[in-house]
Amino acid sequence: MIIVMKPNAPKEAVKQVTDLIQEKGLETHLSEGRQVTIIGVVGDKNKLCNENLTLLPYVDKLVPITESYKLSNKKFHPEPTRVKVGNHEIGPDTLTIMAGPCAVETEEQLMTIARAVKKAGAQFVRGGAYKPRTSPYSFQGLEEEGLRYMAEAKKEFGLNTICEVISEAAIEAAAKYVDMLQIGARNMQNFQLLREAGRSGMPVLLKRGLAATVDEWLNAAEYIISEGNPRVVLCERGIRTYETATRNTLDLSAIPVIREKSHLPIIVDPSHATGVFSYVPPLAKAAVACGADGLMIEVHNDPEHALSDGPQSLTFSNFDQLMNELQAYTRLAGRTL
Amino acid sequence: MIIVMKPNAPKEAVKQVTDLIQEKGLETHLSEGRQVTIIGVVGDKNKLCNENLTLLPYVDKLVPITESYKLSNKKFHPEPTRVKVGNHEIGPDTLTIMAGPCAVETEEQLMTIARAVKKAGAQFVRGGAYKPRTSPYSFQGLEEEGLRYMAEAKKEFGLNTICEVISEAAIEAAAKYVDMLQIGARNMQNFQLLREAGRSGMPVLLKRGLAATVDEWLNAAEYIISEGNPRVVLCERGIRTYETATRNTLDLSAIPVIREKSHLPIIVDPSHATGVFSYVPPLAKAAVACGADGLMIEVHNDPEHALSDGPQSLTFSNFDQLMNELQAYTRLAGRTL
Amino acid sequence: MIIVMKPNAPKEAVKQVTDLIQEKGLETHLSEGRQVTIIGVVGDKNKLCNENLTLLPYVDKLVPITESYKLSNKKFHPEPTRVKVGNHEIGPDTLTIMAGPCAVETEEQLMTIARAVKKAGAQFVRGGAYKPRTSPYSFQGLEEEGLRYMAEAKKEFGLNTICEVISEAAIEAAAKYVDMLQIGARNMQNFQLLREAGRSGMPVLLKRGLAATVDEWLNAAEYIISEGNPRVVLCERGIRTYETATRNTLDLSAIPVIREKSHLPIIVDPSHATGVFSYVPPLAKAAVACGADGLMIEVHNDPEHALSDGPQSLTFSNFDQLMNELQAYTRLAGRTL
Amino acid sequence: MIIVMKPNAPKEAVKQVTDLIQEKGLETHLSEGRQVTIIGVVGDKNKLCNENLTLLPYVDKLVPITESYKLSNKKFHPEPTRVKVGNHEIGPDTLTIMAGPCAVETEEQLMTIARAVKKAGAQFVRGGAYKPRTSPYSFQGLEEEGLRYMAEAKKEFGLNTICEVISEAAIEAAAKYVDMLQIGARNMQNFQLLREAGRSGMPVLLKRGLAATVDEWLNAAEYIISEGNPRVVLCERGIRTYETATRNTLDLSAIPVIREKSHLPIIVDPSHATGVFSYVPPLAKAAVACGADGLMIEVHNDPEHALSDGPQSLTFSNFDQLMNELQAYTRLAGRTL
Repeated sequence: MIIVMKPNAPKEAVKQVTDLIQEKGLETHLSEGRQVTIIGVVGDKNKLCNENLTLLPYVDKLVPITESYKLSNKKFHPEPTRVKVGNHEIGPDTLTIMAGPCAVETEEQLMTIARAVKKAGAQFVRGGAYKPRTSPYSFQGLEEEGLRYMAEAKKEFGLNTICEVISEAAIEAAAKYVDMLQIGARNMQNFQLLREAGRSGMPVLLKRGLAATVDEWLNAAEYIISEGNPRVVLCERGIRTYETATRNTLDLSAIPVIREKSHLPIIVDPSHATGVFSYVPPLAKAAVACGADGLMIEVHNDPEHALSDGPQSLTFSNFDQLMNELQAYTRLAGRTL
Repeated sequence: MIIVMKPNAPKEAVKQVTDLIQEKGLETHLSEGRQVTIIGVVGDKNKLCNENLTLLPYVDKLVPITESYKLSNKKFHPEPTRVKVGNHEIGPDTLTIMAGPCAVETEEQLMTIARAVKKAGAQFVRGGAYKPRTSPYSFQGLEEEGLRYMAEAKKEFGLNTICEVISEAAIEAAAKYVDMLQIGARNMQNFQLLREAGRSGMPVLLKRGLAATVDEWLNAAEYIISEGNPRVVLCERGIRTYETATRNTLDLSAIPVIREKSHLPIIVDPSHATGVFSYVPPLAKAAVACGADGLMIEVHNDPEHALSDGPQSLTFSNFDQLMNELQAYTRLAGRTL
Repeated sequence: MIIVMKPNAPKEAVKQVTDLIQEKGLETHLSEGRQVTIIGVVGDKNKLCNENLTLLPYVDKLVPITESYKLSNKKFHPEPTRVKVGNHEIGPDTLTIMAGPCAVETEEQLMTIARAVKKAGAQFVRGGAYKPRTSPYSFQGLEEEGLRYMAEAKKEFGLNTICEVISEAAIEAAAKYVDMLQIGARNMQNFQLLREAGRSGMPVLLKRGLAATVDEWLNAAEYIISEGNPRVVLCERGIRTYETATRNTLDLSAIPVIREKSHLPIIVDPSHATGVFSYVPPLAKAAVACGADGLMIEVHNDPEHALSDGPQSLTFSNFDQLMNELQAYTRLAGRTL
Repeated sequence: MIIVMKPNAPKEAVKQVTDLIQEKGLETHLSEGRQVTIIGVVGDKNKLCNENLTLLPYVDKLVPITESYKLSNKKFHPEPTRVKVGNHEIGPDTLTIMAGPCAVETEEQLMTIARAVKKAGAQFVRGGAYKPRTSPYSFQGLEEEGLRYMAEAKKEFGLNTICEVISEAAIEAAAKYVDMLQIGARNMQNFQLLREAGRSGMPVLLKRGLAATVDEWLNAAEYIISEGNPRVVLCERGIRTYETATRNTLDLSAIPVIREKSHLPIIVDPSHATGVFSYVPPLAKAAVACGADGLMIEVHNDPEHALSDGPQSLTFSNFDQLMNELQAYTRLAGRTL
């Protein structure tokens, strides 16, 4: 950490700061510039946790140098993490495709879709059983019944399964039926839920919050990993900006940024990011070209009558075509699909 | 709802849309312009909930006309709501001041601060017992112990008490000790928590999400009210923008906007919005001048050693001075403090 | 245009609106819903330009149906536009590569870089002679001298040339030396400059403003085209968001959005969007996979000593490698490079 | 400036950086932490302007310590600046009110409005003669004819006058007719225009750009002042965010932020910020309570037929009432109106 003093800080003010830091057992290094004095602080910052140094006289600002996340930080774990789920490994060698309906609606619907996405080459079927909806009057999901259908789809088609969880009770139920938990964008800083997901020991897909910075996202991952569960996969799904032509703004630069800062895998969800099915294929290809470890894509047997997010769902034939086109992009990325 | 057709939509495409809507028992009104045809839809939109009309051929876009929130909507409830909490009423006649530390740290700390804010004129003491922190390594709160101190402060000083809750368990605990629940910005769309808060029957302060629109905020309130609990107070606390000179950007225009759309009271938290104690007094006065029903302000006996958010906390003397200055603004606003 | 009346609007208020519109020679279509009445307006909206209908009693809001841009609108010009520049055509069949230094520094520097980018396969050399810099104390460009070096590079290597212009005088000078004008992000709504660029008759690369919506961008293009100059190419270069891990947030979904709304070509500048050279290659490949008509990429012979934007510039060897990798992506996109 | 090295930086890499800096005649101070080494740089940073230090091996990032703006910086000019315009001084003692139509439409319209705002207590009449409009098909202003009417209003009512300029030609014309130039939000980084405004020697109202940070805004002011013209007044007018309930989001916290960083006066334009006339009075009062040096408010004799921005204009009677209400707020702020 660096402490920047105000231009006119007298020597006594600088001494007050350095004395306080040294009392706590840390070292200080002074750098007296022509305009300002800066103080480098060396040692365990946690010893200063109940000192608000910015409030000391003549302190201008603190500049943090090291990140607050450790376990999700590439600096301390340079090799890319591979997350094993069922018979599949998410990581640098594969392109993981999670496809399925936004919401599980009926057994028949889910089985029809699962068969189609399996045939097209997906390794996971996704399907929402607990739906966080903006309005309380929208369809809220089948809950445990939906999870049971997911388990059936797994059994029938050999697909891995992933489901969003929105409460401790949902985690407990999901643990009985599916292979991987999803924490949605709206819950990325529901720290209670993150801890429970960590304690479950299950692999977790952590979506980026609607207005979360990359640093906040990696800190959210840290909540899960610090419970002893390193099986975390990140998912970029669009951030909130002023632009309204798409539902959110897909931030594909997050992929190279995450590669630089973290060892965790990262996949991309172009369906929720854009909200428009015809924008999904070009952005899916872009995500793979950009280095994504996988894609989450909404597919529906009858988008015109989907109970949730129909306008952004691919039909079976759109999805087939996309999967065919992705073959070449996957090879160029040095992965297998 | 209005359906806008694409410029070249043939008559059959228009008919397909109107037929479908009429089959569901709603009326349609055609408006054939020179460039486009638009279709007005009259009737209960819920009958269309599993039709994704944007996916019909030649449909350009849907334009919603009515809001999805009803119980929090001023159109159906024109009189301003007054929320009674303990011996105090939050609403158009009063200026409600909630003051106290970001986090309850010790019994002594809380009692010292409660005495000071009471003396300065606050009607509520606030204090966090469950702290949602970006990093898992930051101080997370005293939990139930903190709530007990809050109950003591209430007993000792006759203050109303408010505490943030972050889980169902926290709601149950808080219900035993404090007068009002707070849902924090990060949990504004934790729909599970909103429902539990609704079921508790307790008054709820609902902070605006970091990147929530006013409409999403009122829909979140709708989750609470639709559980049969109309005692909701909104709290503007800054939104996330590109500007980094303040922690968030306080959106005071949300006050007149809420006045136009909703009957719920709205208070303002300038401490979390700015993150800088010296910006709090001018923005507190601005909030009152703008029509806010109250303020939530962080006050600490020793900001330099606060375990959370010290840099944005007022000292006792800063708070005293602000309360004095607020007297005149309160009178101009036609309120009592 | 649609006019939405407030829920309690009396018949007289509706009549006042429809009478006014009909007096101006337009038609109205009424749609009386259970909650609200809406009025469809058919005819030339310009006849209403000095009526502020939202201010009439009981009017809730106006909903525009048609876009304000016409000449840049795909609805009235469904075929993709091809912009011929020198010996090259920018459009759906080619991948256009514009590469070079942020700022022209010396004759030798520019010639060295031009030779390298030509050899690697670029069709354009880019180079700034007029630099809009945030601080007045940063390097501001060589002005006309820089343009002369650009003309030399064209002559020597057969490259097309493009240069940013920031004033009418710069347009006049640039017209003498280079093949294509660039309007920078900060000037996207400098309407005076847009008109002058339109009058010049030269091909214009129009960068998206830092906080411009797609609609504002197409309206800016409309300023140029409405001066009789249809040779406009759009350039996505990142928008301003709350995320600070990259300089701006590259919005690749703008590519499919523009494809749906406009016939103009669109290229992508990943160098300015990210500000970090190592993020440029993955995002360049993503842009091509997403359907971009070209790329603008900063290349420098000595990034460590570049006078402007060194950290985001590729070295010759980085650029060579990227161009090699792009070959396969170009073929997949059905284009030639 | 501080240079932060990567965790594993070898001693030679640190030496390469310090050697380079010392060769350029600056001093370095090393701070070797347990995880990272940081290098403080002391001396004239301009000597390093063509060294991109982030590109040296093992450099993690640069942290600037001092602001790039000097002349607009409070650190070097602690006293608040007072800007004299005609018979009036803008600064800490007065509340300056600039009121009038968005666009000058006719001589009669302007004179009618000028009479009304003078009577209500405004010291300035504002009126646009050159209108920067999103669409080229919207009304673009009366240009010099409009300026002549402004001069007449000044003569007739003793009002000071202010007019937006959008080009060098407009500055020359405006200098003949009005007292103060306005640079609009869209031109805040039109550096050519800023320089011309600086050279004109006239007082300049500099609106904040739609997506400008406070630092970029003060750098824009620096362009004007560095031409020898210190008569700059800032104007906060709303920034672009994701919220659509208001046209932009008025950032009133910019007032205390500017007070901390700069000596320049700052006024607020709630009309453009919100786009809705009924939101203007509460936000105008809030701005004064927050410490603004003045207000710019749109007033129109017939908002229903205004050629530009009617929906956000106050009628004469709304404006009268606001001016009456502002009296008490002005006194509380220790100013005179």
